[in-house]
Amino acid sequence: MTRAIILGGGGFLGRKLAHALAEKGSLAGKPLSRITAADLAAPEDLPAGVEPLALDVTDRAATATALAEEDVVFHLAAVVSGQAEAEFDVGMRVNLDGTVNVLEAARHGGRTPRVVFTSSVAVYGGDVPSPIVDWTALEPQTSYGAQKAAGELLLSDYSRKGFLDGVGLRLPTISIRPGKPNAAASSFMSSIFREPLQGETANCPVGPDYPVWHSSPRTVIRNIVHAAEVDAAALGRFRAFALPGRTDTIGEMIAAMTRVAGPEAEARITWNRDPEIERIVTGWRGDLAPTKAPRLGFVADASFEDNVRYFLEDDVRR
Amino acid sequence: MTRAIILGGGGFLGRKLAHALAEKGSLAGKPLSRITAADLAAPEDLPAGVEPLALDVTDRAATATALAEEDVVFHLAAVVSGQAEAEFDVGMRVNLDGTVNVLEAARHGGRTPRVVFTSSVAVYGGDVPSPIVDWTALEPQTSYGAQKAAGELLLSDYSRKGFLDGVGLRLPTISIRPGKPNAAASSFMSSIFREPLQGETANCPVGPDYPVWHSSPRTVIRNIVHAAEVDAAALGRFRAFALPGRTDTIGEMIAAMTRVAGPEAEARITWNRDPEIERIVTGWRGDLAPTKAPRLGFVADASFEDNVRYFLEDDVRR
Repeated sequence: MTRAIILGGGGFLGRKLAHALAEKGSLAGKPLSRITAADLAAPEDLPAGVEPLALDVTDRAATATALAEEDVVFHLAAVVSGQAEAEFDVGMRVNLDGTVNVLEAARHGGRTPRVVFTSSVAVYGGDVPSPIVDWTALEPQTSYGAQKAAGELLLSDYSRKGFLDGVGLRLPTISIRPGKPNAAASSFMSSIFREPLQGETANCPVGPDYPVWHSSPRTVIRNIVHAAEVDAAALGRFRAFALPGRTDTIGEMIAAMTRVAGPEAEARITWNRDPEIERIVTGWRGDLAPTKAPRLGFVADASFEDNVRYFLEDDVRR
Repeated sequence: MTRAIILGGGGFLGRKLAHALAEKGSLAGKPLSRITAADLAAPEDLPAGVEPLALDVTDRAATATALAEEDVVFHLAAVVSGQAEAEFDVGMRVNLDGTVNVLEAARHGGRTPRVVFTSSVAVYGGDVPSPIVDWTALEPQTSYGAQKAAGELLLSDYSRKGFLDGVGLRLPTISIRPGKPNAAASSFMSSIFREPLQGETANCPVGPDYPVWHSSPRTVIRNIVHAAEVDAAALGRFRAFALPGRTDTIGEMIAAMTRVAGPEAEARITWNRDPEIERIVTGWRGDLAPTKAPRLGFVADASFEDNVRYFLEDDVRR
């Protein structure tokens, strides 16, 4: 029997992960006896068998209590890139101090848990050569990226010390993300598909040649679940790495949407540049060539067309 | 007029830096109106014109007060590698939380100071190809290295945000370090020269083929002072980088000592292996090829023979 907790369980990825775990019912062959979805406000509308919990990861004592008997911790709780840039102190408190609290809670709980930490492609950037490979230095150009990169270093060190068993995943930009636009600078990379596919307009703040390293929610969830099951011995000494993804320009992604859903959606996109968003996202990198993650069994989407189909199947209620 | 403070001013590098600043009398052409040397216990026997201060960098409020009106902050305060490995919580508190306190104090002081942060070659290691270049990923194999690497990320991000003006230097192993053996796993890399050159015995816990990326104290101090003066615009987007150094094996370094000081010293070295020290130091890397630091005017020793001569001139009282 095994117990799992999702931190950030009220977010869109956390909810999808809760559904995936409830449906799967086991991890690494062991039945899931308890699944908890924790967030600042206890998540509502969870699938059957998933327990809600109100938890603020900046509260070290509460985090220690919540993680005391967990075998698998999915640490998705974070302040997103746009907010961490605008509210620096909040980002430091949640993304850095909160992550230390999670690592300490995992260390001092009774079970030396597998900790799956969602990092981000935002750790990359700066003056490094192309393409970005598994041993390319992290030179994040946002506070969010710097805080995630620091968390990765600590996750690996806590794992090396035997305090916990960590796996850090550098998530590609997730597109098409369901729900509403959020404070992430990458929010438009979903909204320019999500809104037009549902009859609404959306603005693209960068040009059509901007390249995106992306993955569908369905594939990211599959990879997060795989991270809970992958053999620790195969991970190597550094526990964080880039997930597989695809590079397409915004223009190529729009063309794929048109091939799946017809020309009406594209006509609903406006093209007003936003210098602040452009500054943040052009600090990221689209030219990744990871080899570690594919070798460990992590996967990418086959096409953005598939990705549009997944969105229509999984997230559009018709 | 400019004011400078040395955190870790009671350590051997801090003391040498205090002497260098007092002698130089200015930084970047501006006269030094005040030099402070701070450490857990207020340093004694400082050169004329250097003020002692008792300061614990884990005390955020005291650190804020100490840095409120400084133009240049030399942040050398740290728990060394052996201690950070043996006492994990102390290392996290001093090397990570303490560094955040220093960055916050520099941010909220009145002067947007240049912050020179001494990182370490211990940030390198793991499964990265040889040689290590400026854009090689950091995969530290010690808690000390992980904490220093996290500090570098924050230093760069605080600089990017304009909160301070940071320069992070990855120091080579310093040899020949004066004084007594300490808790650093690299301590033997000085003691096998320092003690035999002064008529005493010392043990080498690794074999003679072990390669060391090293620098003399005199050259490291010259580089730390240069870091306070180097043009920020030339630094690029990531503010931490490896200092120049030399790679020699322990055997080559001993041969150089013999060429300078005769054969008696070498005969005083014993060769009893220590598996724990060997485990830590073989996790480090000797194969570095930095290009950024030389381009910025940072320098290396010409030979280990020079290094032995510097030790005899600077640190042996006869």
